[in-house]
Amino acid sequence: MRRGGAAGEAAGACGRRARSGGRAWRWRRRRPVREVLFFPSPPSCIEALLAEAAGPGAAARPCPCPLPRGDCSLSRLLRRLLSARRSLELCLFAFCSPQLGRAVQLLHRRGVRVRVVTDAQYMTLRGSQIGLLRHAGIQVRHDQESGYMHHKFAIVDRRMLITGSLNWTTQAIQNNRENVLVVEDAEYVKPFLDEFERIWEEYNPINYRFF
Amino acid sequence: MRRGGAAGEAAGACGRRARSGGRAWRWRRRRPVREVLFFPSPPSCIEALLAEAAGPGAAARPCPCPLPRGDCSLSRLLRRLLSARRSLELCLFAFCSPQLGRAVQLLHRRGVRVRVVTDAQYMTLRGSQIGLLRHAGIQVRHDQESGYMHHKFAIVDRRMLITGSLNWTTQAIQNNRENVLVVEDAEYVKPFLDEFERIWEEYNPINYRFF
Repeated sequence: MRRGGAAGEAAGACGRRARSGGRAWRWRRRRPVREVLFFPSPPSCIEALLAEAAGPGAAARPCPCPLPRGDCSLSRLLRRLLSARRSLELCLFAFCSPQLGRAVQLLHRRGVRVRVVTDAQYMTLRGSQIGLLRHAGIQVRHDQESGYMHHKFAIVDRRMLITGSLNWTTQAIQNNRENVLVVEDAEYVKPFLDEFERIWEEYNPINYRFF
Repeated sequence: MRRGGAAGEAAGACGRRARSGGRAWRWRRRRPVREVLFFPSPPSCIEALLAEAAGPGAAARPCPCPLPRGDCSLSRLLRRLLSARRSLELCLFAFCSPQLGRAVQLLHRRGVRVRVVTDAQYMTLRGSQIGLLRHAGIQVRHDQESGYMHHKFAIVDRRMLITGSLNWTTQAIQNNRENVLVVEDAEYVKPFLDEFERIWEEYNPINYRFF
């Protein structure tokens, strides 16, 4: 599957219940999500996905645009992001995709605690979503270093890591060869959570130096 | 561990043997490697590492340079690469690090089958290792697309995936915030192997179009 391919899916979205001895419900531990997404992903309509995530009543009218709305790497990435219920940590070199920007704003409106760390130089590029996120009330911090803050990862509800080569830009999503891993194994998630908290504190504005 | 930090190690480098019933040696299946490396990694001397990998006799004289030679993210990444015995697939947007270039050439000289896929625009940058690798006889293929070949992954002996945000440049290694995952779970490795083979065939020079 060359364009918008997805591979390596190893778990369903929900835990499964099994009857145990006819007496009690027992929760079976579901297998951790292990998914690999490859890009480029073709241009696609995400209105139905966003409306579904916004809750009942929002999906009143189908979008009239001619873009396909089937399964693709972008839709899979969005579904993973939109599964957030409590928290979303974003550590992103470049964030210019309006589609991903709308998804993050939707989560913020839904009450998910969103925190964003980004690169100081790239956040000022034309098309950057960072200003819009700040305007919406989302917390954003950035580096003050000569090197790039080049990470491209997200952590959903402190249990699911989304990471890879993909910058969150339309150019990367639609034109580049890219990969994204979706990972729930704690051995990968925990170090990234620690890295996020470390960077978050380091980039606290009270530490800014004005040269 | 902010600079050159490594976390999430979950396995030793070698399988372990256990005596079973006093009669036979039995190989216990070792746990898959699961390691996360964070960058920047401080400048360090890798001569001892390369000499050790080159085989007996090569480590005759210690390097006189003043750089530290202890454990760091770069040395860990190098150890993983240098563990290759049969094959190494590289799918790299930018490859400008002389240290990583020397490691790859060493593997080639040791008889490891090395194949490199890279980005057509970035391979011509000053400092690119691609020309040196080709000169050494290593097979290199590149894209012919308008989008970037933006992957940054390696596959060692078809069983270990090394992937993340890190471009293989000294700038990225020593100055940027970056991550690298080292992964042996087949659910992640297999899709990347398939992606490599797909791209390798697609970028076969017999398919080049001369505009």
